[in-house]
Amino acid sequence: MELKYIENILQKVKSGSINVEEAMNHLKNLPFEDMGYAKIDHHRSLRNGYPEVIYCEGKSIDHIYGIVENMLKKDTNILATRANEEIYQSLKNLTNDLVYNPLSKTLVIQRKKTQKYKGKIVIATGGTSDIPVAEEAYVTADILGNQVQRLYDVGVAGIHRLLANTDILMNANVIIAVAGMEGALASVIGGLVDKPVIAVPTSVGYGAHFNGLAPLLAMLNSCASGIGVVNIDNGFGAAYLASTINRQIELARKE
Amino acid sequence: MELKYIENILQKVKSGSINVEEAMNHLKNLPFEDMGYAKIDHHRSLRNGYPEVIYCEGKSIDHIYGIVENMLKKDTNILATRANEEIYQSLKNLTNDLVYNPLSKTLVIQRKKTQKYKGKIVIATGGTSDIPVAEEAYVTADILGNQVQRLYDVGVAGIHRLLANTDILMNANVIIAVAGMEGALASVIGGLVDKPVIAVPTSVGYGAHFNGLAPLLAMLNSCASGIGVVNIDNGFGAAYLASTINRQIELARKE
Amino acid sequence: MELKYIENILQKVKSGSINVEEAMNHLKNLPFEDMGYAKIDHHRSLRNGYPEVIYCEGKSIDHIYGIVENMLKKDTNILATRANEEIYQSLKNLTNDLVYNPLSKTLVIQRKKTQKYKGKIVIATGGTSDIPVAEEAYVTADILGNQVQRLYDVGVAGIHRLLANTDILMNANVIIAVAGMEGALASVIGGLVDKPVIAVPTSVGYGAHFNGLAPLLAMLNSCASGIGVVNIDNGFGAAYLASTINRQIELARKE
Amino acid sequence: MELKYIENILQKVKSGSINVEEAMNHLKNLPFEDMGYAKIDHHRSLRNGYPEVIYCEGKSIDHIYGIVENMLKKDTNILATRANEEIYQSLKNLTNDLVYNPLSKTLVIQRKKTQKYKGKIVIATGGTSDIPVAEEAYVTADILGNQVQRLYDVGVAGIHRLLANTDILMNANVIIAVAGMEGALASVIGGLVDKPVIAVPTSVGYGAHFNGLAPLLAMLNSCASGIGVVNIDNGFGAAYLASTINRQIELARKE
Amino acid sequence: MELKYIENILQKVKSGSINVEEAMNHLKNLPFEDMGYAKIDHHRSLRNGYPEVIYCEGKSIDHIYGIVENMLKKDTNILATRANEEIYQSLKNLTNDLVYNPLSKTLVIQRKKTQKYKGKIVIATGGTSDIPVAEEAYVTADILGNQVQRLYDVGVAGIHRLLANTDILMNANVIIAVAGMEGALASVIGGLVDKPVIAVPTSVGYGAHFNGLAPLLAMLNSCASGIGVVNIDNGFGAAYLASTINRQIELARKE
Amino acid sequence: MELKYIENILQKVKSGSINVEEAMNHLKNLPFEDMGYAKIDHHRSLRNGYPEVIYCEGKSIDHIYGIVENMLKKDTNILATRANEEIYQSLKNLTNDLVYNPLSKTLVIQRKKTQKYKGKIVIATGGTSDIPVAEEAYVTADILGNQVQRLYDVGVAGIHRLLANTDILMNANVIIAVAGMEGALASVIGGLVDKPVIAVPTSVGYGAHFNGLAPLLAMLNSCASGIGVVNIDNGFGAAYLASTINRQIELARKE
Amino acid sequence: MELKYIENILQKVKSGSINVEEAMNHLKNLPFEDMGYAKIDHHRSLRNGYPEVIYCEGKSIDHIYGIVENMLKKDTNILATRANEEIYQSLKNLTNDLVYNPLSKTLVIQRKKTQKYKGKIVIATGGTSDIPVAEEAYVTADILGNQVQRLYDVGVAGIHRLLANTDILMNANVIIAVAGMEGALASVIGGLVDKPVIAVPTSVGYGAHFNGLAPLLAMLNSCASGIGVVNIDNGFGAAYLASTINRQIELARKE
Amino acid sequence: MELKYIENILQKVKSGSINVEEAMNHLKNLPFEDMGYAKIDHHRSLRNGYPEVIYCEGKSIDHIYGIVENMLKKDTNILATRANEEIYQSLKNLTNDLVYNPLSKTLVIQRKKTQKYKGKIVIATGGTSDIPVAEEAYVTADILGNQVQRLYDVGVAGIHRLLANTDILMNANVIIAVAGMEGALASVIGGLVDKPVIAVPTSVGYGAHFNGLAPLLAMLNSCASGIGVVNIDNGFGAAYLASTINRQIELARKE
Repeated sequence: MELKYIENILQKVKSGSINVEEAMNHLKNLPFEDMGYAKIDHHRSLRNGYPEVIYCEGKSIDHIYGIVENMLKKDTNILATRANEEIYQSLKNLTNDLVYNPLSKTLVIQRKKTQKYKGKIVIATGGTSDIPVAEEAYVTADILGNQVQRLYDVGVAGIHRLLANTDILMNANVIIAVAGMEGALASVIGGLVDKPVIAVPTSVGYGAHFNGLAPLLAMLNSCASGIGVVNIDNGFGAAYLASTINRQIELARKE
Repeated sequence: MELKYIENILQKVKSGSINVEEAMNHLKNLPFEDMGYAKIDHHRSLRNGYPEVIYCEGKSIDHIYGIVENMLKKDTNILATRANEEIYQSLKNLTNDLVYNPLSKTLVIQRKKTQKYKGKIVIATGGTSDIPVAEEAYVTADILGNQVQRLYDVGVAGIHRLLANTDILMNANVIIAVAGMEGALASVIGGLVDKPVIAVPTSVGYGAHFNGLAPLLAMLNSCASGIGVVNIDNGFGAAYLASTINRQIELARKE
Repeated sequence: MELKYIENILQKVKSGSINVEEAMNHLKNLPFEDMGYAKIDHHRSLRNGYPEVIYCEGKSIDHIYGIVENMLKKDTNILATRANEEIYQSLKNLTNDLVYNPLSKTLVIQRKKTQKYKGKIVIATGGTSDIPVAEEAYVTADILGNQVQRLYDVGVAGIHRLLANTDILMNANVIIAVAGMEGALASVIGGLVDKPVIAVPTSVGYGAHFNGLAPLLAMLNSCASGIGVVNIDNGFGAAYLASTINRQIELARKE
Repeated sequence: MELKYIENILQKVKSGSINVEEAMNHLKNLPFEDMGYAKIDHHRSLRNGYPEVIYCEGKSIDHIYGIVENMLKKDTNILATRANEEIYQSLKNLTNDLVYNPLSKTLVIQRKKTQKYKGKIVIATGGTSDIPVAEEAYVTADILGNQVQRLYDVGVAGIHRLLANTDILMNANVIIAVAGMEGALASVIGGLVDKPVIAVPTSVGYGAHFNGLAPLLAMLNSCASGIGVVNIDNGFGAAYLASTINRQIELARKE
Repeated sequence: MELKYIENILQKVKSGSINVEEAMNHLKNLPFEDMGYAKIDHHRSLRNGYPEVIYCEGKSIDHIYGIVENMLKKDTNILATRANEEIYQSLKNLTNDLVYNPLSKTLVIQRKKTQKYKGKIVIATGGTSDIPVAEEAYVTADILGNQVQRLYDVGVAGIHRLLANTDILMNANVIIAVAGMEGALASVIGGLVDKPVIAVPTSVGYGAHFNGLAPLLAMLNSCASGIGVVNIDNGFGAAYLASTINRQIELARKE
Repeated sequence: MELKYIENILQKVKSGSINVEEAMNHLKNLPFEDMGYAKIDHHRSLRNGYPEVIYCEGKSIDHIYGIVENMLKKDTNILATRANEEIYQSLKNLTNDLVYNPLSKTLVIQRKKTQKYKGKIVIATGGTSDIPVAEEAYVTADILGNQVQRLYDVGVAGIHRLLANTDILMNANVIIAVAGMEGALASVIGGLVDKPVIAVPTSVGYGAHFNGLAPLLAMLNSCASGIGVVNIDNGFGAAYLASTINRQIELARKE
Repeated sequence: MELKYIENILQKVKSGSINVEEAMNHLKNLPFEDMGYAKIDHHRSLRNGYPEVIYCEGKSIDHIYGIVENMLKKDTNILATRANEEIYQSLKNLTNDLVYNPLSKTLVIQRKKTQKYKGKIVIATGGTSDIPVAEEAYVTADILGNQVQRLYDVGVAGIHRLLANTDILMNANVIIAVAGMEGALASVIGGLVDKPVIAVPTSVGYGAHFNGLAPLLAMLNSCASGIGVVNIDNGFGAAYLASTINRQIELARKE
Repeated sequence: MELKYIENILQKVKSGSINVEEAMNHLKNLPFEDMGYAKIDHHRSLRNGYPEVIYCEGKSIDHIYGIVENMLKKDTNILATRANEEIYQSLKNLTNDLVYNPLSKTLVIQRKKTQKYKGKIVIATGGTSDIPVAEEAYVTADILGNQVQRLYDVGVAGIHRLLANTDILMNANVIIAVAGMEGALASVIGGLVDKPVIAVPTSVGYGAHFNGLAPLLAMLNSCASGIGVVNIDNGFGAAYLASTINRQIELARKE
């Protein structure tokens, strides 16, 4: 709902440069493109320099192909998450600047180089098994214009591995804490530093882990303050939120 | 784990101004006060100008009384959450600058006036029933040094009430979205503005609401990006996280 | 989002009868009234002859009082649900045409007599314990302008009690099936008649009933087709949906 | 339980045209056909012009083959849902007018052209991934004699995509809202229009989505009124209910 | 659905002793009594010598009073379960042969002495805390005409207490195993004797007991065979099922 | 714990025919055979004419092979449940009287013909998809010496299919009600006949069915009395319990 | 099952000092006392010097009174847990050496002074609100003969409070970690020291804490090894297990 | 946090043998090795003679290969759990003293022979299907230096199989009870012997077993005292805890 956009239309109506019917159409047709099975919202990327994002899970390969093909016309950056090998193979011939990362299951087409924000995002993981989720966050935060630093395998079972890296945490604007098992990493980090912490529970575990429910509940109930939680395995979401925070900081820096 | 603090101790050991045993004691006795049943951590408040915080639920009145009495000696600001009338009555005679808010169930003792950050936090609620949680967030964000604006009863069942206030959302640094029922408010706000959104599910609902599980799951699964979730009814936690973000922004502004 | 309303504003802008700033205000201030803690939406009742509805649970008595007081100025019909005795006592002196039903926990102020739709809604219950929920549905459907017929205590443990009343079901436009325990009533009714059935699970039960989860799941999994489910104990919601259906039927009748 | 049917039998007993034993058999053998492993109920399709429906999941291919073979003898329309490729292949040689839709996993044999009801059903989805469920609803509503309109990918993360299509919603008799993720689509539609809304949660999501539990709970707890919910991914059920409503409307139109 | 009853009506129609309309009424009005809020089914008690049963929870006292008052006219035995002190007080003046048991929360009015079945039902409990549920079963089994023997506090933590009483188990027709905590009693009894075992989980426990969920799941997953489970705390249901089994045995004995 | 067996040993000790050490060994070595990975309990089959039973799921094929090979030496009847094709193939060469039923996934070796009990067990299913579970019950009840009658596809969506077969239910000693979806079949049968009903929820369903949780809860909460529930898909367990009841009846008949 | 006890009986049978019937009675009547509603097992306390333990929750005051009265005859130590004020008042006049602790809700009658084991049990809590559960563990461990040390309020939000006390943990034989919120304390302790850790989740928390489910799952999924978990709030159970471990250690020390 | 290690560094600072910067580095770089994706903690194995442990699930084969390759340089014992055939094949060429056990899914490289503790650990299982989990515990306890004894297939459905082996239980220091189904084994063992019992629920079961939830809850709610529970299928964790207990006992023995 762009108030300025609406005001502009009203001005044109007043001046008579467009008639009421045209104004109605403008108000009704905000800048998205209707493909029948998908309505691509160029709005956000146009405005922000943000990439177009496609969440691939559950979409048919035909639909994904069509969406990417359409997006490529605008020459924006594109990030596809939860993309398996098969999707990669089908998209490969659309463009030769497609970068696939099988660990993070991300596909990136970077058409525009964006200047990086000054502030840093640190991504910490409890263990080695949490890395795929952390890498989804890494790739996302990177394409969104952030400087990102990895701090992997610093889980609480060996607390000195984390304590030895406190300075890295101190130098971050935002910290993303990725952890499966009991998810205690977020609490310990939240207790060590007064920074926004985005906690990502992972589905790494078994039995009473219930595919990530255990760390999800732990993170929501953290005794440390300043922790926001995203969905299980949602590396993308954590990075997006971290980037939004980083952008607000950058904007303030430039004021 | 204060690296500077440790370095300082090491310097003193080197210079001989303290001996090894003393250094050991310093390293072991970081600045918290041991009351037997509670270990008060003056650390954070000393460093940050942050208030001391007491979460009252589950603590005996005797313990709360003792903790507050001890804190008052440091003359810091104090925030007690989840405080019922009975707790208020018992603490009232400790000091006469105690402010009790029965709606938010908060007790505030403000000894130091802090300068407010420039950035604003907006607190939106889906309905009137979400107000107690929103007010806990309000009081918390306020005592932590933020400018806060209320935007209550803008739930998605009447979407125009929210759309009519988009400009308020646009002017915020961080938005706290408090909602019970199906918790869709966070998604709609997240879709409207590119700001960090802290989502607070509330226990307002019945039946298959399961005391807040419904909006909690909804918020974690939001189709909008940039949303971090805190525990059900955790107004305090949302405000604390929002304030941490706002502080990072403020720091950048001052760089 | 009233397209006609917007078109009208555009016309006025064009004709110059209002200026752009005024138009912006009109577009921003759709017809709801801001009370700070609540935004009353007179929109719906104005348009539909529908009553204003207040869901009382979780709202403070002060807020409810203020909302009703404000609504009374418009002289519309008012329905308050989940209203306990205390709320009734506090509202009683606002107006003397307040009708309180302690069984359904509803408060009704009927200022306008509406003509009833021709079609009938039948409300069936599995047992006697389901009656409070059924009565909430009854009062709601009635104030919304429907003819309503009760068919109580026809649960499947004594299937002949239901079979003996098949003709009542046959004469309904919509059937509301209210049942706790295992909630089989909806399935059996759905199997007997080809009418829209709104199923309301109730929290009547114990143990593995989990406060209504058992009949909720049963109703969602009904082997009979044509069943829509509302939340546990949501008599109001069932009646509202049934009334919406009935209204569409009435509109067709009048075409 | 057909009262007319029973009355007819009683008349025949009275007139002596059948004896008591025969009457008993008639009363016991209502019009379904016993195949041992399945009892086909021709009753409904005979009466309504409705198609016979087979839910394929969990049934052996032999059983499905037998059931369809038997149904074909009556020359009614047939709809098979949750039919995979293997089932399609096995049934293909039974008849050459079998239409398989791999997206919706439906098999249709349309022997009788039915006149469409005048009222329209609109099927909206939150995203592209919800399309398979929406298509199951589309195929079902179509074979049941309804005019159906698709409105796909209008989820709340980009609310203007929905607002721009409000007129389509306004022209529907019934709206089916299909959404995964947090399922907020149903609430927003329910808040925009005063029509019966059938909400279908989909299993599209991950982590704390719990295979559709998140949108299911959200839809059951919608702050908008007039919403009936069907089981997760139950496109068929939603369409059947919508069609039942549409039929009641059609009947009223013809009164 | 009484086939004999229907046949009888058909015969009367044939002979002309009743006309078709009367037959229709008979078929529609099976022997239950309609009180508006309750439909009392005298059918079962008339046929079986079984008592009328009222489940009191969730029913208003007025409704219970009315139901009992109506039942008393038939002079059958009456059993009311889940009856609290308040209900007892309100019913006391209806009749002076009302027996209230506050431990089992049962009310019994025994107007007819029934001869006891020869076979015995044994009711075993894991602990002392399970006794209220066991006593509900005791009172129920007794009024239904069974010989009942108590075997209380024989839980598996002291397995010799149970082993020492194996002969009591051996002499039962049916065994009711009532247990909270982890509910292992049913499995151990099921492993010791080849009798039908009715398992009743109780809500006795705390924490991860989830009000009876733990023993419920344990009993459903028993490694011993021959165990049927009823709802948590459902002493009545267990006794009713045990009595049904005992009656089948008695009938065979009398063949 | 065989008291007679122990008494016998004591008598031998007394008479000196065995010494104390031997008696200790007898008491310690009750009649089961230790294979290291399994302890086969010949006890029950020796005493009862009951078959040896192997639950195959989770056991390695080597272990199953070894167990069956050992059992065959005793020439008892053998029933293996949850046996897949692979297990069948591996056991086939052990004996040529092995009967495999792929629908029920049962393997039967019947070495001894047992006389059937006089009483009948009826197995009813809600739909065609419930047949595999029902067949597991059929095979089990049959090998345990019962007369069994099938009554398939009589679910409550077409209630007349069940009502037309009430006489079959009336002639049973015990009824096994197998149903997925919402599991209402057990309630309706329990309301129609005063027989012990063993309810078996099946995992047939989807979405909010949660693999059988929906009918499990429904059956535990049945408004009809006299229903005992076994685990989801536990056709074996239902048949075993039904057979135990039938055996008690048979014993009474022979008294 | 005392093999020595049985051997002794067999010897007596052999020598003729008791006859077979007497032997049978001895074997059947192991040393517990039957009070009808409770079977007191003096066995364990006789053998171990362990106190008799009564879990009060769910037991009627009459039953508790009777059990304690009976136990007092043996002059053993008695521990009653989950005892409220009302129970204390009713038992007070039975004996004047009854010690009630309202914080831990324990009642202790210590008739015999036991020598303490040499090894120490440390009880750590995350916060002040966990103290009631920790105190139940303290009182239990103490009466069972252990030296116990408290280490309260050392939760992970301020990790230095725990690190500063590592030496206390190092000097324990067994550590009991009591924590609510996200329950991370157990993991951090388990990572710091190679000692058996008994983790006790507490119900301290709200919202998505689900009364202790969050820390329960966290503790079961700990990334640290060497952690055994007991039920939510089960201070008694943790202390009992710790004491059993401590006793094994003590026995080894004395070998 | 090694206090001695820190003291040593402080001494060196004091003596001037290292400067402050070096001390800082030492304090920051505790003895773990940073591989980027994993931080191997040689600390524990160096100190304890304990093996390095790798939990393979969720880790990429490349990462596992790298970790093992690195560990091999230290010539410590190595235990890899949850290792499938593919992992075994990939590691096989790293060293020829790799022992793979496909039943327990463990890989062992034993470079150092450790002297066994004197005390024994007994591992009991309820059934044959629980053996894989029990064997994971066996292999773990063995490599950790314990004497281990198997007692398999002694579940409570045939309680005499367990009672006949009470002496084996009596001779253990610690007992690990591994059970699926309803998990009653732990309770019965806990009632028979006064030893620490580590209970391991297994995922063996179906339907309302919920992959191990049933025995997990049962074990947490055991009516027997002295039971600590580990995660579902966590044979490793149970053995590790048992070994920690056994080590404490061994240490006491050597005092």
